Amino acid sequence: MEHREETTTLISADKVSGTNVYNTVGDSLGEVHDVMIDKASGRITYAVMSFGGFLGIGQKYHPLPWSALTYDSERGGYVVDLSRERLKGAPVFADEAQPKWTREYEQEIHEHYLVAPYRGSQAER
Amino acid sequence: MEHREETTTLISADKVSGTNVYNTVGDSLGEVHDVMIDKASGRITYAVMSFGGFLGIGQKYHPLPWSALTYDSERGGYVVDLSRERLKGAPVFADEAQPKWTREYEQEIHEHYLVAPYRGSQAER
Repeated sequence: MEHREETTTLISADKVSGTNVYNTVGDSLGEVHDVMIDKASGRITYAVMSFGGFLGIGQKYHPLPWSALTYDSERGGYVVDLSRERLKGAPVFADEAQPKWTREYEQEIHEHYLVAPYRGSQAER
Repeated sequence: MEHREETTTLISADKVSGTNVYNTVGDSLGEVHDVMIDKASGRITYAVMSFGGFLGIGQKYHPLPWSALTYDSERGGYVVDLSRERLKGAPVFADEAQPKWTREYEQEIHEHYLVAPYRGSQAER
């Protein structure tokens, strides 16, 4: 599809990818590279934000809990309440060293961003 | 990311795109072109399946309710309980005539595939 899809309620994964991510003071942090889906629930769990690098070389990725992102239609991007300093200590990986997405790794992400894990919220349903 | 991501519980949208879709008797119906996300819940609502066409010309798209797809690890693709005949009467669109994804359009999809609309299941939570 040449034209990427979005309505007031729905958005395509294609369109989410490439969308800029800013923090609340307007710093550009990177862009959404991909999203991770929980197979069991069909729910988006993480936005994998990419930053740095040149032509894909040296690019780094931060998995952000999806629920930490808010879409700002004025900026045309997602906003995360996160300083650049805090992002520096966040879980990060490079192309050649992908995480295994273990439960411990996911816990580390959620603890860093102070967001309740989605598994917990599923159990509560 | 060169290597697409998948674990036992998570899968990236990148990896879902391009995955084959079969019916229960093993006919190849097409492949997942993109997925639609419900912005409010962060839930995947539809797999947009593409089929036909050549080099993207004349390609057609069927939105399938995400809950109608089951991953079959042996086939390495998604399986839908759907004959080719039944698919012929299903909601379909071409690149130049994208749907507006109105509530009525979504209802039509869900009625065709006999799958309860996700909005209903959200209200029940």
